[in-house]
Amino acid sequence: MASLDPGIGEKFSQRTQRAINHDGSFNVRRRGGPPTNDPYQRLILMPWSRFFLEVGLLFGVLNAVFALAYMALGLEDLPGVAAPHGWVQDFLSALFFSIQTFTSVGYGHVYPGSNGAGALSSLEALVGVLTFALATGLLYGRFSRPTARILFSSVAIVSRRADGTPCLQFRVANRRANILIELTAQVIVKFTDPATQNFSYAIAALEREAVSFLPLTWTLVHDLVPGSPLHGLGPDDYVARAVEIIVMLKGYDDTFAQDVYARNSYIASEITWHRRFRRAYDVDENGLAIVDLDALDATEELEQ
Amino acid sequence: MASLDPGIGEKFSQRTQRAINHDGSFNVRRRGGPPTNDPYQRLILMPWSRFFLEVGLLFGVLNAVFALAYMALGLEDLPGVAAPHGWVQDFLSALFFSIQTFTSVGYGHVYPGSNGAGALSSLEALVGVLTFALATGLLYGRFSRPTARILFSSVAIVSRRADGTPCLQFRVANRRANILIELTAQVIVKFTDPATQNFSYAIAALEREAVSFLPLTWTLVHDLVPGSPLHGLGPDDYVARAVEIIVMLKGYDDTFAQDVYARNSYIASEITWHRRFRRAYDVDENGLAIVDLDALDATEELEQ
Amino acid sequence: MASLDPGIGEKFSQRTQRAINHDGSFNVRRRGGPPTNDPYQRLILMPWSRFFLEVGLLFGVLNAVFALAYMALGLEDLPGVAAPHGWVQDFLSALFFSIQTFTSVGYGHVYPGSNGAGALSSLEALVGVLTFALATGLLYGRFSRPTARILFSSVAIVSRRADGTPCLQFRVANRRANILIELTAQVIVKFTDPATQNFSYAIAALEREAVSFLPLTWTLVHDLVPGSPLHGLGPDDYVARAVEIIVMLKGYDDTFAQDVYARNSYIASEITWHRRFRRAYDVDENGLAIVDLDALDATEELEQ
Amino acid sequence: MASLDPGIGEKFSQRTQRAINHDGSFNVRRRGGPPTNDPYQRLILMPWSRFFLEVGLLFGVLNAVFALAYMALGLEDLPGVAAPHGWVQDFLSALFFSIQTFTSVGYGHVYPGSNGAGALSSLEALVGVLTFALATGLLYGRFSRPTARILFSSVAIVSRRADGTPCLQFRVANRRANILIELTAQVIVKFTDPATQNFSYAIAALEREAVSFLPLTWTLVHDLVPGSPLHGLGPDDYVARAVEIIVMLKGYDDTFAQDVYARNSYIASEITWHRRFRRAYDVDENGLAIVDLDALDATEELEQ
Repeated sequence: MASLDPGIGEKFSQRTQRAINHDGSFNVRRRGGPPTNDPYQRLILMPWSRFFLEVGLLFGVLNAVFALAYMALGLEDLPGVAAPHGWVQDFLSALFFSIQTFTSVGYGHVYPGSNGAGALSSLEALVGVLTFALATGLLYGRFSRPTARILFSSVAIVSRRADGTPCLQFRVANRRANILIELTAQVIVKFTDPATQNFSYAIAALEREAVSFLPLTWTLVHDLVPGSPLHGLGPDDYVARAVEIIVMLKGYDDTFAQDVYARNSYIASEITWHRRFRRAYDVDENGLAIVDLDALDATEELEQ
Repeated sequence: MASLDPGIGEKFSQRTQRAINHDGSFNVRRRGGPPTNDPYQRLILMPWSRFFLEVGLLFGVLNAVFALAYMALGLEDLPGVAAPHGWVQDFLSALFFSIQTFTSVGYGHVYPGSNGAGALSSLEALVGVLTFALATGLLYGRFSRPTARILFSSVAIVSRRADGTPCLQFRVANRRANILIELTAQVIVKFTDPATQNFSYAIAALEREAVSFLPLTWTLVHDLVPGSPLHGLGPDDYVARAVEIIVMLKGYDDTFAQDVYARNSYIASEITWHRRFRRAYDVDENGLAIVDLDALDATEELEQ
Repeated sequence: MASLDPGIGEKFSQRTQRAINHDGSFNVRRRGGPPTNDPYQRLILMPWSRFFLEVGLLFGVLNAVFALAYMALGLEDLPGVAAPHGWVQDFLSALFFSIQTFTSVGYGHVYPGSNGAGALSSLEALVGVLTFALATGLLYGRFSRPTARILFSSVAIVSRRADGTPCLQFRVANRRANILIELTAQVIVKFTDPATQNFSYAIAALEREAVSFLPLTWTLVHDLVPGSPLHGLGPDDYVARAVEIIVMLKGYDDTFAQDVYARNSYIASEITWHRRFRRAYDVDENGLAIVDLDALDATEELEQ
Repeated sequence: MASLDPGIGEKFSQRTQRAINHDGSFNVRRRGGPPTNDPYQRLILMPWSRFFLEVGLLFGVLNAVFALAYMALGLEDLPGVAAPHGWVQDFLSALFFSIQTFTSVGYGHVYPGSNGAGALSSLEALVGVLTFALATGLLYGRFSRPTARILFSSVAIVSRRADGTPCLQFRVANRRANILIELTAQVIVKFTDPATQNFSYAIAALEREAVSFLPLTWTLVHDLVPGSPLHGLGPDDYVARAVEIIVMLKGYDDTFAQDVYARNSYIASEITWHRRFRRAYDVDENGLAIVDLDALDATEELEQ
């Protein structure tokens, strides 16, 4: 761990983590500030396994609490429960009755036989129905959250146009069979000052910032000409200044009927020089265009 | 099938399939790439018949599994089930109890009579409620997915403005009685190189790219002047270069409270020359404007 | 009814109906075209009374069908039903059992006592749960459909700026206590040719096309200067050419978290000349701004 | 309370309340106008405590009404209810049966034993299921309403750029761990005329009106140069003219998959002069950027 020797600027800058990971997440932490509590965000963003675990836990805890409440009333208020068999069996009997109430199954072989049990089971039925109402909304919110499945080429290349203009290029394709339309892109270059660790950002203009639809592949091109924040930089400069090419894509997804976003970034080690991309689609014998996603990274040497 | 003789460029280019079908779908296939699994997209996009089939199948399979589990416990744990009558009847009895639990009907003439059956039926009630929560979300997602019902004229025409400027025109109308506002259009021309089968795209500027609302019909006009990618091309060029006029429409739909999109394209055989459109609306005796959707294609010879 | 004498252009043009009613709906009918079936749009747009009527009817019909099916099986398959009392009582008994199954209440004093009744009630439970899932989505879709409650001044005025420039003005305010932000407006003038009944449209530029928020009132101003489609027209021209000032407003509503739209139009008889608007807000003794919606129409004579 | 002495312009203007509070709400009231009834907005915007209270009340009232209806029929129509024990016990018994029907629990130890009770309980089951369908939608609508948790610096500062240009600055950060992208800002200055209490508004241009993403902090800069509505004003002018710097932020939130909005404003007493902001992020030993929300307000004296 280099953490034993912080403070040497030049070395340190090389340890600056990328701002954006390949999965689109940001490398930032927050501290301080007023406390925030966003249960919706937490429940929407957690993995499915954890979501079902938390739903199951909540379901178990709520029903256990109601079961204990029925026991406190006394199981004689729940006709149909077998005669007392010790507290474990009593708890299980109360628990099963509670779950039958909470889920509104209500077989009725056990039923509330007193005003206390009637009131408690009425409350539980209401809580149960509202809980599942909430779960319905959360399931829909999780399921319908739009996510783009844009495949980025794993490298960016420094290439040359037909007229000799040097340029930075990378390529994207849609991994899904759905339709992305009105796709727009923006590229930002992040620099880190090796001495002060101050970050700075500059926009890198694209030859074309939008396409109407993305059926095949799209090669994004930034000309390395005067005015570009990357003009005149060589591979060593990319490393020294911790250059990170940040890409933001936005498009409208036909399935979700919403805009979807994708992010990625390329750091110095992910940029190769003097290459060009090869065509990544073919036309089959019936005239149908076929995109080969495995060929998205296919490049070849630039001829001299 | 011409597929026996691929490889002759000139012939081949004429077999290039259109990029966009009349129903708005794209003629593209994907291969390779990382596996994708998008259950939401699949369940949203499949036809209703298939959706209900899959829901019915899932419902049947889940309940059959639970029924077998109840049988494994032993039907004596489900008081109210008739005495054993062979495994078919036992399975049916367990299946009906399972469905009554899964859907939370819970008549109670059969009920869980042991801790094992109590636990299993509790689990099933939870699974059932969550399954229907998911189905609720999916039904809403399918039902509320906004779709434009834009009617395009079945042909595009090469016409002439009053001042003699040649132009390409086609016409759209809203098939629905709802309101489309802030309608914008973009036209892209796709060419296929007969030798290399490389695709190229060019934007065809419209005389007017947006209308505030679409109560009647909208004629989209692209002037065939210098600067147009179609300038100077005749019918033979359209065929040789596999010209495809791709149209993308976007508007806000009052009912869905969302933007809706429509796509269409015209290939060489769907373009007629030296015609003009006839008015497709009338005003009745009460001053009410009436759009005649059947007249959307109505054209007449251009006078000399 | 003037419908006995159509065809006299000058008179006829005065019978042209306004394109947009004060409630924002369009005066257009469609005929012809392929059939459309948009159950979602129909169910979302119908009045609440009709919605509940249709839901009630569907509920009644479905349950009656199931009740008849149970009767076809024979009520002896539904133990707990009283002995036969004629077909009316039998139908009611089957209907109540059906509803208890459809809504998953399932008291169980009547229950399916044969494989046929078990299968039928299982199917009904599934149909019932899915029906209510759909109803849930529709209720949410209806309830959450964003609608703007913009109050328009009931007249537009032809006024004069401080520098003497003549201008057309009208005023809007938010009827609700919610927040409308990023409000944009567009004004289109519709003319009807008295001879041919052809419609033509022109954009009327606004002095200011957007406001960041609408807490008080917003006066929209169109200068009647050269370049305006209304430049030089007097009250008689407005009538003769059936001028209609169409207004489209769009804003973001904080409650619905969506864009909302409002439309209105002013015809010749709703335009008054040589007036100006009076301020429609006050500041109370605590410094709080108060909008007086009743004063939205308040105008006064322009001094000479 | 200064409310005893209204009417003196100079003093009065200082009592003008800010247009926008720190929580983003507006200080405006409405009076007059047609009545509005927006149950959705009311139910979405009320606090959770009140929402659950109203749901509970509605649930209680509806069930009490049904309970009274069952009593009117006569409890002998509900077999399973114990023999009459006075109207309190009868009401409770009917209430519990009602709730079991409304929530579709339906134990069945009490059940409808007549056509009247059958019809009434069928109606109640339908009403119950639809009520919970509505509650499901409302819970989802409340939970999923997007809200930005933007932290604004509690003061704005009048500072100076490196080249000596005076400027107004304030700073924002995201309180949440989620991602805000395509963030745009607009600043409006509100003046109040001390004599007439007329409000006027002017746009204050920002050095940069948008950032692609907000992982760290964003300092918004308005240059106090000719053309700025604040050019040449000193602290006393800010007070005399009741200057309020209104800020509107808009960004896309990855979790809600929607645009979110934030508002704030700075009045004269919240503007400090001749300060500059200190950097509010650090890079830890692993190269990870860390935003310190508590340092968002950190400023230091401008050196001479």
